[in-house]
Amino acid sequence: MSEEMNVVELSQRIISGDRVALAKAITLVESTKDDHIELGSHLVTACLPHAIESRRIGITGVPGVGKSTFIDAFGSALTDKGHKVAVLAVDPTSDITHGSILGDKTRMEKLASDPNAFVRPTPAGGALGGVARKTRESIALCEAAGYDIILIETVGVGQSETSVHSMVDMFILLVLATAGDELQGIKRGIMEKADLVVINKNDGENATYTNLAKATYHQALHMFPVKNSAWTVPVVACSSISGSGINEVEKSTNSFFTQIHTSGYLTKHRAEQNGYWLKQALTEELLHRFYTDTNTTAKLKEIELEVKKGNENPFNAARKLLKGWGYKS
Amino acid sequence: MSEEMNVVELSQRIISGDRVALAKAITLVESTKDDHIELGSHLVTACLPHAIESRRIGITGVPGVGKSTFIDAFGSALTDKGHKVAVLAVDPTSDITHGSILGDKTRMEKLASDPNAFVRPTPAGGALGGVARKTRESIALCEAAGYDIILIETVGVGQSETSVHSMVDMFILLVLATAGDELQGIKRGIMEKADLVVINKNDGENATYTNLAKATYHQALHMFPVKNSAWTVPVVACSSISGSGINEVEKSTNSFFTQIHTSGYLTKHRAEQNGYWLKQALTEELLHRFYTDTNTTAKLKEIELEVKKGNENPFNAARKLLKGWGYKS
Repeated sequence: MSEEMNVVELSQRIISGDRVALAKAITLVESTKDDHIELGSHLVTACLPHAIESRRIGITGVPGVGKSTFIDAFGSALTDKGHKVAVLAVDPTSDITHGSILGDKTRMEKLASDPNAFVRPTPAGGALGGVARKTRESIALCEAAGYDIILIETVGVGQSETSVHSMVDMFILLVLATAGDELQGIKRGIMEKADLVVINKNDGENATYTNLAKATYHQALHMFPVKNSAWTVPVVACSSISGSGINEVEKSTNSFFTQIHTSGYLTKHRAEQNGYWLKQALTEELLHRFYTDTNTTAKLKEIELEVKKGNENPFNAARKLLKGWGYKS
Repeated sequence: MSEEMNVVELSQRIISGDRVALAKAITLVESTKDDHIELGSHLVTACLPHAIESRRIGITGVPGVGKSTFIDAFGSALTDKGHKVAVLAVDPTSDITHGSILGDKTRMEKLASDPNAFVRPTPAGGALGGVARKTRESIALCEAAGYDIILIETVGVGQSETSVHSMVDMFILLVLATAGDELQGIKRGIMEKADLVVINKNDGENATYTNLAKATYHQALHMFPVKNSAWTVPVVACSSISGSGINEVEKSTNSFFTQIHTSGYLTKHRAEQNGYWLKQALTEELLHRFYTDTNTTAKLKEIELEVKKGNENPFNAARKLLKGWGYKS
């Protein structure tokens, strides 16, 4: 995408629901190139006034729990009801593995060919903070394109859930029903964030353990204090293969959104999230402005060398470099 | 400390080795009050040219492993040899527990009354990043006061070790010799950072398992790639109570410093650390300048309200707030 992009044209195509334009825009937002970041940022600003109010749902669980097949089944059930569903992913490990370990499109067969679904499962690499912000901006683009349900897949390692929590309204935790050790492998802090626990792969041999697992999770959830949303977390069993229980997941989701909408929790939670993103955006923008300032670049190189040699102390050097830095007039 | 501090006088007292002045200065550096931060920062700048080259040693291990008693015995052995020893601590959990869980002075009886030792075991609370920086500045103050060995106690939870690694030359990992499960409880990534493994409490019943533990740790250490310092990590057993093995710990420490001094690794490592601290200081100073700018405060409050209400998007708001922010020609 080397040619100059027409922001107005691209944003109009996104707003009209053009999936190719949406994919292009997300690529710009995910890019680490300066001119792409610039374009992506203008694009988000142009699209935001057109963003519809969607339901933002995070889906997490340890690798192997069947997140992709669940999203395929759950997402298809939602498009059947007339929703437009977008699937995004946050993967903090992608900078290490140089590629996403999250569900590829081949494991979301139904959604991938569904005209009312947009699947974007491979997130950009890089620092988690950056990835989270990019995902937050991608959400806005999807909402501008008319998607009223955004599913965000995370990898279940703890760190990603915390940042995803700052952009979703609801968290679904997928678990397996197997003999014993049900709670093993679930990172501390993740269960506390769950608004719905789904026992996945409730088929074949696993089904034998479903009731036991339900009891175990109910008991575990009971240990946590009442949620700020005042919502009581249900435990639902489902099979992404047979489709059993998917309806119940959908019903629980609806009940959750009805409750947080009515109680005002959704509004309050989103306000807090917006405050969080303002702080994040300010920090990123501050750093970006400083490090890309032409006055900085030469001076920084020189002083960094002196600091490394030990001729100048880092704290003093920082103050020197920032002398005269502030609002111009 | 409400009265205006005389930075020049206080720094002179620190450089002359006055421990009361040193303690006062560290309190300033650890403070979260704006005027204290300002004073502390001037103080560090005044002291830094007088900082001697010390050996900076991080000491870590799970709670209960006997860090405080070990530091008491090891530190006393060092002052016996004519060294001046300062003890600092980094405790990332202190903002949760509202108080340090690290060794209090009562568990460092010998060092606490040693004229050649300075013990400051209770670190300030707050965000880890901030704590680390404060500890880094406290090190500089201790070095200006003539302490040639700085021992930094950390809590063994993983996160603190990473930040301490950016300020020490050497890491000592304390472990226990007990039946089996020796490697249990040691956070991933900590053993890779160790330059010396000390099997502590090599007395009483534990002593039975010492040889087994030595073999286990040697084997575990063998799994890691060769260290950048090219140093082969020894495993030494000691008893902080009987004093056995403390001499060997000291010898291993000396060998380590001789090697990294000769090979040039120490110089290279410190240069990298200085580069790291320059980046840290720049980020902190950038944020500090922005949030304390009088032009910012009023505007930020107003725009934050609009962002929270959803009338303005966070990314656009950040750009608006930072308009005109940069070098004032």
